[in-house]
Amino acid sequence: MFSIFDSQMMLRAIELAERGIYTTAPNPNVGCVITQGDDIIGEGFHFRAGEPHAEVHALRAAGGNTKNATAYVTLEPCSHYGRTPPCADALINAGVSRVVCTMVDPNPKVAGRGIQRLRDAGIQVDVGLMQTQAEALNPGFIKVMKTGLPYVQLKLAASIDGRTALANGQSKWITGAEARADVQRFRAQTGAILSTSQTVIDDNPSLNVRWAQLPEDVQCEYDQTRLRQPVRVILDTTGKVSSDAGLFSLEGNVVVLTANKDLGYIHENVEVILVPKAQHGLDLNAALRLLASKGINHIWVETGATLAGGLLAAELVDELIVYQAPKLMGADSRALVNLTGLTSMNNVPTFELTDVCQIGNDVRLRMQKQ
Amino acid sequence: MFSIFDSQMMLRAIELAERGIYTTAPNPNVGCVITQGDDIIGEGFHFRAGEPHAEVHALRAAGGNTKNATAYVTLEPCSHYGRTPPCADALINAGVSRVVCTMVDPNPKVAGRGIQRLRDAGIQVDVGLMQTQAEALNPGFIKVMKTGLPYVQLKLAASIDGRTALANGQSKWITGAEARADVQRFRAQTGAILSTSQTVIDDNPSLNVRWAQLPEDVQCEYDQTRLRQPVRVILDTTGKVSSDAGLFSLEGNVVVLTANKDLGYIHENVEVILVPKAQHGLDLNAALRLLASKGINHIWVETGATLAGGLLAAELVDELIVYQAPKLMGADSRALVNLTGLTSMNNVPTFELTDVCQIGNDVRLRMQKQ
Repeated sequence: MFSIFDSQMMLRAIELAERGIYTTAPNPNVGCVITQGDDIIGEGFHFRAGEPHAEVHALRAAGGNTKNATAYVTLEPCSHYGRTPPCADALINAGVSRVVCTMVDPNPKVAGRGIQRLRDAGIQVDVGLMQTQAEALNPGFIKVMKTGLPYVQLKLAASIDGRTALANGQSKWITGAEARADVQRFRAQTGAILSTSQTVIDDNPSLNVRWAQLPEDVQCEYDQTRLRQPVRVILDTTGKVSSDAGLFSLEGNVVVLTANKDLGYIHENVEVILVPKAQHGLDLNAALRLLASKGINHIWVETGATLAGGLLAAELVDELIVYQAPKLMGADSRALVNLTGLTSMNNVPTFELTDVCQIGNDVRLRMQKQ
Repeated sequence: MFSIFDSQMMLRAIELAERGIYTTAPNPNVGCVITQGDDIIGEGFHFRAGEPHAEVHALRAAGGNTKNATAYVTLEPCSHYGRTPPCADALINAGVSRVVCTMVDPNPKVAGRGIQRLRDAGIQVDVGLMQTQAEALNPGFIKVMKTGLPYVQLKLAASIDGRTALANGQSKWITGAEARADVQRFRAQTGAILSTSQTVIDDNPSLNVRWAQLPEDVQCEYDQTRLRQPVRVILDTTGKVSSDAGLFSLEGNVVVLTANKDLGYIHENVEVILVPKAQHGLDLNAALRLLASKGINHIWVETGATLAGGLLAAELVDELIVYQAPKLMGADSRALVNLTGLTSMNNVPTFELTDVCQIGNDVRLRMQKQ
């Protein structure tokens, strides 16, 4: 069903889709290539929610020459009116004779209807090329559509003996400047940055994206004028965070998740959302579902050992990203995560290692839920 | 002084030297290339103590055609009679007109005398090409010659949260089979494998090299019939290890370091050495010096958190090699090393990260003393 040429074109479409990773949230990253015979005649990708989809950009780039062309799209073309009209219609109107896509759109508003619409118009549609690679473009979008829960990345920083602070609380700095810049890369890609009231009170963090601190390779492809700030989400069970906390006054929206019905902030950029309580703190599963219902597909968690342990124990972490410094902080220093009571090596939380690299004098490990 | 051709030839000599890494201990790894004009006419490396040195192999390979040749050697040619005659004399007798070497031999029996002997014979000697790379061939030999202490590699295996056993003591297995095979690679290269009576009593380890378990790339270059067993060294302050311990009955020598004057074993392969006591256990510095004086330049340590902490606190560790599994064992599990009381991030033991790689589903980090 698929030729080597098809694979080459889809790989290019995936490359194009990746150019949107800093800006498309909460929309999925999508790329599109239009070919006529052996030639690429148009390329496009989705840049930002509310702006044209990849197919529309690619068709425009192709000019009028799209009669009997082939379109390669990294997701099923949409069939519904959102902020833009359906891409399936655009492809039909352009006269393409074949559409190749990686996968059915898991969005229940589409879910095969885009493909059907194309086929009903007499277009050959081939589905399933490079589905795994395409899924990797949109882990959050796909997970929310399938489960109602967002994709959660838990970031931790520790010494080689797995410690996050000395016994006296000192922790600045464990990792070096390069590793901290790399964190900015992940922040820039996520829909929301999640932390706790305790972290806000202890560290007064900004939890935002600082363009000047992004790694150079990100700066090259991400224009400063189009910087998108992820939503900052604070778990604050009882409502401890003061209105004076620095993060409220920075650009971008803040969501405070709390069980305190009386909590309110005067800041225009702050939304307070009530979340049911669990045995300890908030019901994390409910909290994440609420965020997903607000269009937050992808969450980057920077927090202390308590929430880290809670998310891990509840099996809500999809990916662990650990920055490790080649230092030893000692057996009396603070543990990486508050998990206890494990009694069998067969049952300890185990991840699949997907990537290891050196960043400055530190290591970054990426691990996926198994 | 050095041309690109010189560098190419020395790189080749270093490559040759590396072919001895499993067999030459306690002798250094040395490689040699003989050239005539633009042609390599002979190559050789030192294979095993007592057998000919690299220069002799290379001259033999060159046949009689060595008049006015150039010799590239990864160490200063020796000037003394050991188990073989001086290589400087062999080069003089062969009629070479130029010798290029990386460094002066730090062995006080040589220490420039080989170079002098060549120069006295009218040979041009150029010293200092690729010294750093040549030093990396023989960290143990060089360290002992310079300081009297062996080069110490401390191997640790832990979960991502830096733990070596669950609270109940369970630890099999943290890392996977590939990581455990990789440990065999390092064992095969070292002069001695060091552990403690506690580890011997708890785990009854073999502490040897098992050819069948070596990684495939090592098996390809290391003939099973020439397998060399490193000396196994057990720190046993009071003399707790029973004569029945499995490691005594395996091929290869064992050294027991103890403060117990009455300790003795009937096994022919076991040597007992008395070591002064320190506040806790044996004087580790004295123990390592004694081993160096017995020709042990390079030590691979596989041990528990106590000796690991002791060696680190005494700054006797040159290289940390940590295998990490993408698992979480919890905040109540056992710490990586028994180090405590650190009070400032500026003073925690910090290493230089030299290598990171994935091995199976685990990570291996190599870190060098700064």
